[in-house]
Amino acid sequence: MPPPPPTAVSPTQDDLKRMAAHRAVDYVKSGMVLGLGTGSTAVHAIRRIGDLLRRGELSGIVGIPTSKQTEEQATEAGIPLSDLESHPSVDLAIDGADEVDPHMNLVKGRGGSLLREKMIEGTCERFVVIVDESKLVDYIGGSRLAMPVEVIPFCCNYTLERLRRLFVDSGCTAELRIEKGKPFETDNGNYIVNLYFERDIGDLNDASDRILRLPGVVEHGMFLGMATTLIVAGKLGVTVKEKSELAS
Amino acid sequence: MPPPPPTAVSPTQDDLKRMAAHRAVDYVKSGMVLGLGTGSTAVHAIRRIGDLLRRGELSGIVGIPTSKQTEEQATEAGIPLSDLESHPSVDLAIDGADEVDPHMNLVKGRGGSLLREKMIEGTCERFVVIVDESKLVDYIGGSRLAMPVEVIPFCCNYTLERLRRLFVDSGCTAELRIEKGKPFETDNGNYIVNLYFERDIGDLNDASDRILRLPGVVEHGMFLGMATTLIVAGKLGVTVKEKSELAS
Repeated sequence: MPPPPPTAVSPTQDDLKRMAAHRAVDYVKSGMVLGLGTGSTAVHAIRRIGDLLRRGELSGIVGIPTSKQTEEQATEAGIPLSDLESHPSVDLAIDGADEVDPHMNLVKGRGGSLLREKMIEGTCERFVVIVDESKLVDYIGGSRLAMPVEVIPFCCNYTLERLRRLFVDSGCTAELRIEKGKPFETDNGNYIVNLYFERDIGDLNDASDRILRLPGVVEHGMFLGMATTLIVAGKLGVTVKEKSELAS
Repeated sequence: MPPPPPTAVSPTQDDLKRMAAHRAVDYVKSGMVLGLGTGSTAVHAIRRIGDLLRRGELSGIVGIPTSKQTEEQATEAGIPLSDLESHPSVDLAIDGADEVDPHMNLVKGRGGSLLREKMIEGTCERFVVIVDESKLVDYIGGSRLAMPVEVIPFCCNYTLERLRRLFVDSGCTAELRIEKGKPFETDNGNYIVNLYFERDIGDLNDASDRILRLPGVVEHGMFLGMATTLIVAGKLGVTVKEKSELAS
């Protein structure tokens, strides 16, 4: 009897995340200061970097974690850590994203650590974003999932209502992120307001400024013009796109 | 012997503050929701409102305090209090300022409560600013005293350095506000970076957006286009200016 034909096993979403993450680690060179992202995709990059350090294929790496969670994962992986005050100049950051639009603008921070991520990823030389193809959207908000905004706890429902009204023309709804029956607290002791849009919110830089001008808002999850490289893992393999290749 | 001529007693700075504050309370009508400012000038208005309530000349007032300190002072003065979530629509706010420029733009928050002040005073119908004449400046920063910026404690020295660099052309220096040997903590658990400018920083709305775009910044002490009425007490008496009277 002839052997059965080889079965094509579809990669799981976690396989795709790992594929994108491993491809991103190709950009890491010995001696680099690295921004280490937060979440289920970024953790694959952290583990990979740890492996390469152990095997002696990388050395002299300094990691800057974007959250307390990442700090623990990187410590476990054996990556020496520091912070922005000791290493204000970051060579490369690798992180996942919740949404990526065709201009490589991102929504991030559904994990709750958008502020530290933005501090670190907003200033690095190269910022490599790693996603599985489910994260690609036609426009920011297009997944109908949350765009998070970090707010001061003081009168947060008042701030929530002002946020909602900013985007009332885009069918915006807003809700305080709740976990275990209480408002979710960020690493900075603040709360998260989740915004949902029914329609495109238009000019993103303008939207960003309008959000930031509200007193009570600390930061939002739109990362505009920051990604320099996008790595997407899909059923047909891994695609790499540089920002310089985008039609402007 | 003829009696000695009457002595002209110069008003103290505190007398001037009280004169301006009492004049501002003329705008308060029964039934109003009032934003209550913070500091050595605003406290005179709080006490005056308390007096008028006790004498029955005002009634039905609801105060929204801009700081924990103001909350205590208003409670002591017998003013019923609420917050923005229960009373999102504020009729009138009265507060002092650290600097007032010729366009009625302000620097506030040297007392450390700029965020709550801005939340409340940025949305009220009428915002009456009360100062003694020493607070008038030719341009924002012109007093050479601090323009405070509220920042997240995480990597605050990194944020401080980015703030300083924004205004390097205006001879900016920046320092973390220290009290009793520790970073001063705001009511929201954040820190204050004090900015000092040697020269005019130019377009204030642009400066505001550039500050707010820095991740790690929560809010700054420039209150632009918010004041509707300015009351200045000086040696020659009290002057009242409406925003509508300003040359644009």
